[in-house]
Amino acid sequence: MRALSGIKPTGTLHIGNYFGAAKQFEMFQQKNYEGFYFIADYHTLNAYPEPAKLTENTWNIVLDYLAFGLDPHKSVLFLQSQVPEVVELAFILGNYTPMGLLQRAHSYKDKTAKNELINVGLFYYPLLMSADILLYKSNIVPVGKDQKQHVEIARDIAEKFNMHYQKDVFVIPEPYIPEDVAIVPGTDGQKMSKSYGNTIEMFADDSVLKKQIMGIVTDSTPLEEPKDPDTNNVYNIYKLFVDKARSAEMAAKFRAGGYGYGHAKKELLEAVHAFFDPMRKRRTELAQNMDHVEKVLREGSEKARSVAIETVKEVKKTVGLAGNIY
Amino acid sequence: MRALSGIKPTGTLHIGNYFGAAKQFEMFQQKNYEGFYFIADYHTLNAYPEPAKLTENTWNIVLDYLAFGLDPHKSVLFLQSQVPEVVELAFILGNYTPMGLLQRAHSYKDKTAKNELINVGLFYYPLLMSADILLYKSNIVPVGKDQKQHVEIARDIAEKFNMHYQKDVFVIPEPYIPEDVAIVPGTDGQKMSKSYGNTIEMFADDSVLKKQIMGIVTDSTPLEEPKDPDTNNVYNIYKLFVDKARSAEMAAKFRAGGYGYGHAKKELLEAVHAFFDPMRKRRTELAQNMDHVEKVLREGSEKARSVAIETVKEVKKTVGLAGNIY
Repeated sequence: MRALSGIKPTGTLHIGNYFGAAKQFEMFQQKNYEGFYFIADYHTLNAYPEPAKLTENTWNIVLDYLAFGLDPHKSVLFLQSQVPEVVELAFILGNYTPMGLLQRAHSYKDKTAKNELINVGLFYYPLLMSADILLYKSNIVPVGKDQKQHVEIARDIAEKFNMHYQKDVFVIPEPYIPEDVAIVPGTDGQKMSKSYGNTIEMFADDSVLKKQIMGIVTDSTPLEEPKDPDTNNVYNIYKLFVDKARSAEMAAKFRAGGYGYGHAKKELLEAVHAFFDPMRKRRTELAQNMDHVEKVLREGSEKARSVAIETVKEVKKTVGLAGNIY
Repeated sequence: MRALSGIKPTGTLHIGNYFGAAKQFEMFQQKNYEGFYFIADYHTLNAYPEPAKLTENTWNIVLDYLAFGLDPHKSVLFLQSQVPEVVELAFILGNYTPMGLLQRAHSYKDKTAKNELINVGLFYYPLLMSADILLYKSNIVPVGKDQKQHVEIARDIAEKFNMHYQKDVFVIPEPYIPEDVAIVPGTDGQKMSKSYGNTIEMFADDSVLKKQIMGIVTDSTPLEEPKDPDTNNVYNIYKLFVDKARSAEMAAKFRAGGYGYGHAKKELLEAVHAFFDPMRKRRTELAQNMDHVEKVLREGSEKARSVAIETVKEVKKTVGLAGNIY
């Protein structure tokens, strides 16, 4: 069984991303899935990233994932644009995709409703995502609830193609929506998200990380009064990093009164460091050895590409593109 | 200077195609253009060709072009789908292409107006065609009047991209609309076209070719009466194959009376054979040596691909796709 997961290199990762990714690593390993992880750089182009920034973000995510503990010997870590077969497959599949299927995609509908100028890349997005999934004959695609439609579109296109040629060329992928996903709260209590500007970046410089944690929004209950830990952003983030005994300890201190948010933030900062410092160290070491990191990404991309080439060969043969001269 | 020309492998070629292609070979050579000729197999997919038929048509056109006298040592003859970089470029360019540009394309507008079901491949057609042109940094693209829009779209996209990055990545192609194109009349007097079913196929079996020529539509003027050669399909086709003296001879016979369409058709059949028999012979020989033909197409495709890879590398570097690990 193969499970696939992609991430867009649009900025630095935060602790919400970490817990999402770690959950996936764990899930893939537990079920003995072959994990295919990719950095979805093609997918960023429709928003015109500044080129140097896109390159920088790409390498940053590679470093982040390796620092998180992704083992490139057990999983395949690759760069989407190093496997251009994905674009070829998207193009071929486009012919079996009614316009309506893409016009009904959420991202397109939302932008159209707002009368925004839309480029073809944005419209094409769900088709490329379908190719991402189908190219590697992925069985399982973990997605958030809001991305379920993407897998449905991929299934739809795969079924249309298989039906047209009466041949099981594509594996019909299954979406996997993890049930017990802890929503990681941001510094303002909303879901942590780059777009809300409420993130804690575990790989940022010490000073930035400290500033983010010290900036967690709290209420103005005076120091001496008791506080409810459960409606408390500091406590809710703290829980992610410590065992039950330690979180119960902080909860008790809050309930007792005489324990302020400033104290709690300091404990949180320490806990974050204790949790991430080994990864931060690993990341720093990797960043000092970019030749090795490039090699890891190149080898992963070659591995992914060898699978991709087989799929595309089969598809080209199926549709009659004189693939026999390969 | 590089000139590019593509042809869709959708069926057997006819004498209208021959004169169009021969005109191009001549034009490219006279002006010392480097000719890039491709079989546009990707472009056929949006109409769901029967796979075996698509493959067959592809090889037939390769044979036809070589039989016509295209010299693969002087020009580059290649198969579109053997250079998948074209699809990658189309995808990247799609991000710089407003939806409106493709929505205004004739083919899409026509189908939409007829309320036909449209697949994404058809919608995407002008974008792939733009990539066909821009990938090879073609300076000149010979087109019929009805295809001028395609080159305009390619120019538009290339300019948008160059402007966005303030860099002359793409050559802005010029359409070339040959002025003195002789319209080759079909067997019914309309322009010869597969869609009208009025073609003469110079590489068909003797019996088919004879039937097509004998089936040329004529009026019912009795044998003995004089006939106007200029409104006469047989004569108008005959003129394409003989010199002025010989065409004047047939014109005189028509005007004199006592000369029937049957006689003229026989003379036409002979003239067609005299003209095409060396090519028919060459084609038969080539068809008996498909290993060689495959090699020619493979080598041409490799040559085209080496140009394509350079362009795509430059484009990827420009937009920031971490192309440095190539």
